Amino acid sequence: MKFASYLDGSRVRIGVVNAEGTALSPLDSSVHDMNELIERYDPESLRTVQGAEIPLESIKLVAPLLPKRNIFCVGKNYRAHAKEFAGSGFEAGAVKGAEIDEFPAVFTKPPATVIGQGDVVSLHTGVTSAVDYEAELAIVIGKAGRNISPENALDHIWGYTIVNDVTARDRQRNHKQWFLGKALDTFCPMGPWITTADELKADSLDVKCWVNGELRQDANTRDLIFDIPTLVATISAGLTLKPGDVIATGTPAGVGIGFNPPRFLKAGDEVTISIEGIGTLTNRFG
Amino acid sequence: MKFASYLDGSRVRIGVVNAEGTALSPLDSSVHDMNELIERYDPESLRTVQGAEIPLESIKLVAPLLPKRNIFCVGKNYRAHAKEFAGSGFEAGAVKGAEIDEFPAVFTKPPATVIGQGDVVSLHTGVTSAVDYEAELAIVIGKAGRNISPENALDHIWGYTIVNDVTARDRQRNHKQWFLGKALDTFCPMGPWITTADELKADSLDVKCWVNGELRQDANTRDLIFDIPTLVATISAGLTLKPGDVIATGTPAGVGIGFNPPRFLKAGDEVTISIEGIGTLTNRFG
Repeated sequence: MKFASYLDGSRVRIGVVNAEGTALSPLDSSVHDMNELIERYDPESLRTVQGAEIPLESIKLVAPLLPKRNIFCVGKNYRAHAKEFAGSGFEAGAVKGAEIDEFPAVFTKPPATVIGQGDVVSLHTGVTSAVDYEAELAIVIGKAGRNISPENALDHIWGYTIVNDVTARDRQRNHKQWFLGKALDTFCPMGPWITTADELKADSLDVKCWVNGELRQDANTRDLIFDIPTLVATISAGLTLKPGDVIATGTPAGVGIGFNPPRFLKAGDEVTISIEGIGTLTNRFG
Repeated sequence: MKFASYLDGSRVRIGVVNAEGTALSPLDSSVHDMNELIERYDPESLRTVQGAEIPLESIKLVAPLLPKRNIFCVGKNYRAHAKEFAGSGFEAGAVKGAEIDEFPAVFTKPPATVIGQGDVVSLHTGVTSAVDYEAELAIVIGKAGRNISPENALDHIWGYTIVNDVTARDRQRNHKQWFLGKALDTFCPMGPWITTADELKADSLDVKCWVNGELRQDANTRDLIFDIPTLVATISAGLTLKPGDVIATGTPAGVGIGFNPPRFLKAGDEVTISIEGIGTLTNRFG
């Protein structure tokens, strides 16, 4: 199933999105938000409001969930992107011939970076002049666990969504640790909704990203250097993952710094990300 | 004033610690936790329960606050430590002669790393064999703000506490981005309480750390490379700081990897950190 969060007046509600991705059926009001849905998930007991399908074009979607702590993000997890990043001049300490890491690089984005479908990403003029997009498949954890083995990793995943890991390349480079370049308010568009894990083969999904209609990223999750079970095992080593945690799995080649000169985002640009089996996330920058 | 969080049965309560740091007076029950106290802080309206001073030795302190998102942490912020780190072999990409960064390195620790006075830090045997201590002054934000100028930074600080930025050096090195080496459950002892900003000159405080009674770190916050106003300005650039946010300001020289061979922590070791004007934080490792 696909679960979306949307505004009903000033209140956030959850709905089940139809197969076409054109309408949703609201869950009954006993479910208050996505974190609660995930924590108590029981597909048998879910009840939608009868006869109340709402066209998506008539409502405002919000980010599918508001994370309770920083989002976990993986860097340099596609070979072609690791090379474009190392060659861009924006990777502090990049070493030619050693673009591919032996272990995954993990950093975080604060919950306040998260915005939803159609929300505007701030360019933060004055703080950065090098805003870039990164289309990514994101994992949503459903079952808590620590020291999860790769074999058991999929049991802990509730669903998948799309994340745009927006990055201020100048800050990412200057501060060496990537956090400050990744953490600016509104720098994590998420959505349009979450597809539950039973509906997806996440190890072979097409990931595409367009800027103003021009295809920039076009890859498949089978090309992840560190696959999803490895990421869950690596991050959960000594660190208890909790329901509602989000792990962004890294971006493929084709980001703005992959061009020479770099093609950074400017006011009015629109970035659209589609991932097979999930949907399409579009945000304007300004 | 000094505000501590402690257990009253299974409930967390807040108390005002006396000048000697030996007893506390509980706040009346209208204040439910430290985040709430900070958000609505009004020293004039605070009421302690009359005649109910409790010796600290008779109660269990907990971490002064439970952060609502990851703690912000600054790396390599004392010259002598930046050099010992670069020379240790545990800094990925260290460059001789360039040990001091031009911009502060910032990373995060999840809220679940936070434990209190007297709690045991897990060594996470099997995940790491290189657990190290880092004594640090931590800032507690009181007033929200974005793009805060260095001149206004102190207006946004509610108080100060002590943090032990416990680190798995092998994971910090292997994963290049430091997060995974910093984020293991229990890896952030915090406390023993928060001293409000009006009581401290935070730019010149002695910071000391002992392992099993042996003095290892002995420095003063006047030696911070990036001072507190600079850190608040840098982190808040494009990122809204919120009441209850915690910023750990970096550790001085004398950590375990400063020795050759490194002196990592082992089961039963006790680490004690004292910061002038705040107090003493002690935790055992096991």
